[in-house]
Amino acid sequence: MTSSETGESLWPSGACPLPRDSDGRQVTLAHGEGGRETRRLIENCIWKLLPRTRYSGQGGDAARLPRPDGALAFTTDSYVVTPLFFPGGDIGELAVYGTVNDLAVMGAVPLWLSLAFIVEEGFPMSDLEAILQSIAAAATRTEVEIVTGDTKVVPRGAADGIYLNTSGVGVFVEPIPPGPDQIQPGDMLVVSGPIGRHGLAILAARENLGFEPAPLSDCAPVTDLFRAVRSAGVQYRAARDATRGGVAAVCQEWARASRTTFCLRESALPLSDEVRGASELLGLDPLFLANEGNVTWAVPPKHLTELLRVLHGTDLGRQAAVIGEVRPHQSVSVVVAGRLGRERVLEEPSGVPLPRIC
Amino acid sequence: MTSSETGESLWPSGACPLPRDSDGRQVTLAHGEGGRETRRLIENCIWKLLPRTRYSGQGGDAARLPRPDGALAFTTDSYVVTPLFFPGGDIGELAVYGTVNDLAVMGAVPLWLSLAFIVEEGFPMSDLEAILQSIAAAATRTEVEIVTGDTKVVPRGAADGIYLNTSGVGVFVEPIPPGPDQIQPGDMLVVSGPIGRHGLAILAARENLGFEPAPLSDCAPVTDLFRAVRSAGVQYRAARDATRGGVAAVCQEWARASRTTFCLRESALPLSDEVRGASELLGLDPLFLANEGNVTWAVPPKHLTELLRVLHGTDLGRQAAVIGEVRPHQSVSVVVAGRLGRERVLEEPSGVPLPRIC
Repeated sequence: MTSSETGESLWPSGACPLPRDSDGRQVTLAHGEGGRETRRLIENCIWKLLPRTRYSGQGGDAARLPRPDGALAFTTDSYVVTPLFFPGGDIGELAVYGTVNDLAVMGAVPLWLSLAFIVEEGFPMSDLEAILQSIAAAATRTEVEIVTGDTKVVPRGAADGIYLNTSGVGVFVEPIPPGPDQIQPGDMLVVSGPIGRHGLAILAARENLGFEPAPLSDCAPVTDLFRAVRSAGVQYRAARDATRGGVAAVCQEWARASRTTFCLRESALPLSDEVRGASELLGLDPLFLANEGNVTWAVPPKHLTELLRVLHGTDLGRQAAVIGEVRPHQSVSVVVAGRLGRERVLEEPSGVPLPRIC
Repeated sequence: MTSSETGESLWPSGACPLPRDSDGRQVTLAHGEGGRETRRLIENCIWKLLPRTRYSGQGGDAARLPRPDGALAFTTDSYVVTPLFFPGGDIGELAVYGTVNDLAVMGAVPLWLSLAFIVEEGFPMSDLEAILQSIAAAATRTEVEIVTGDTKVVPRGAADGIYLNTSGVGVFVEPIPPGPDQIQPGDMLVVSGPIGRHGLAILAARENLGFEPAPLSDCAPVTDLFRAVRSAGVQYRAARDATRGGVAAVCQEWARASRTTFCLRESALPLSDEVRGASELLGLDPLFLANEGNVTWAVPPKHLTELLRVLHGTDLGRQAAVIGEVRPHQSVSVVVAGRLGRERVLEEPSGVPLPRIC
């Protein structure tokens, strides 16, 4: 055993790449090694920029949290979106809203998030700080606490900037929605707002499509929608945020789960001017475009009016619309009735429309 | 809006890279897009290889779990180790044991894990399957259920093979250990077995050091140790698995948290022949080498004998040893008493001994 003054001198020559940046403007490999630099990054940057809450910054290997009041909801998502900063949002708020929304649509109140970074060596510290500020604002807005985390740094070329993972814990609130397999013929399909905005925003930002102004992502928390729906006692079968694969993927999954056929009305789909224009110009189907702040509901007809009334009273749901209905099972899962009344089959999303959208 | 038969034709020419592999032997971008290929990968590969448990494979955006019996433990870790398969383990079991161990050392019984993949396009499907099998075996062994997950695929060059994230939820069992800030002068420091094995295994595998046989990682769950310690009613102040930064990092953190000085005895450190030999040959300090199945305890002197007795009765703890003691605060945090009685200061780990160790 050899005594040593510092960690740097512990390693055989060549096995110890030195940090390439010591002025603090970039993330270095040392920031991920669990020693002094990691501690300083966590203490001076991460915990400093994140909100101080009851259960944050405890140290130790796991957060200690109170016993929840009911059944537990647990979800995880990694975020690999590119570009990291896009019109209408960034990877930080996406990572908070995405996971919070996954809990909310299941009928749970989001409580606690974990936050794990995989950062590429050389990543600008200013971008990391901007992402952390964005995470902080999103967590405060949605009243979730970031209670545990992890930071790994990989060498240049082993990641593309930064990847995040957030896992979320929430508590279910009664009555818990029965779920997609309880969807019945006659149920109505509702979306909370214009569809396809996140997908178009990322596509436009990445492919330099030159739209002016740049189309904005709909990246937003849907927690207010669910608070309003719960307060009003509106009952629904199932809810889902239509992210990757768009509203088409949700409809496909639900139709299969409930052994029904979904019929969507093309003329009823709420579209922003940007999505309508770009879809016509580029031959896109907004049903396949991703959303990051949009909920699809299946609701029994007798609760439809009340659901729409409640949604129309919220900021995010002002343009909520009925987009179709559920029929007894036919040979296909989802059909779309066009403007001239002709029905076409909506296929399950497939292939690679646009990688790294979230 | 344009009608379309498949997702592939939705995109303007050039915006839609086709999967480069359609024979199923590699992971393609389409596997991460939330449509048909993602569903098939999840249904036919991921859920098929993972254990079927009460709460697995529910579908939906979040798992629905029962109300836990007590205070909740919540932790997260990303795993970026290279090589993915190393002597004594692989990234899959590391991702299960690492997160399970983080819960166990805090005094919680691990219950549920999330599992998120970031996979590089072109990653061999056979390697993904091997990793899933390893995850399955590790989850079964530690009696945790994998209840929710996520799969993202990034283009070639945007990751190095595969990265995992597991987050873990557990329930605390009374009495909850008081924690590092309650460590007192006079407390004894115990490790559960030979130190530095994971760090050396990764270093040897990566730098082609040519050791024969190759040094094995100590990658293992520590849950049995804690079950035994709890059953015997042994009280301790704090426990920690000494991963990145090694036992040195744990001692530094604890000494700071308790405003004491830790004194380690060099001759008392349990070392495998491989770690002893490699440390002498290469000038490594085993205190800085990572472990992945090794616990450090701070224990009041009156519980020391019982702790050692219990540990020595377990598979993992047969070589448990007292490595030092806690003194009143001096000017430094950690000292190491050498074989000739001279004391040296143990610095906080710093720099980049070996990136991507876990």
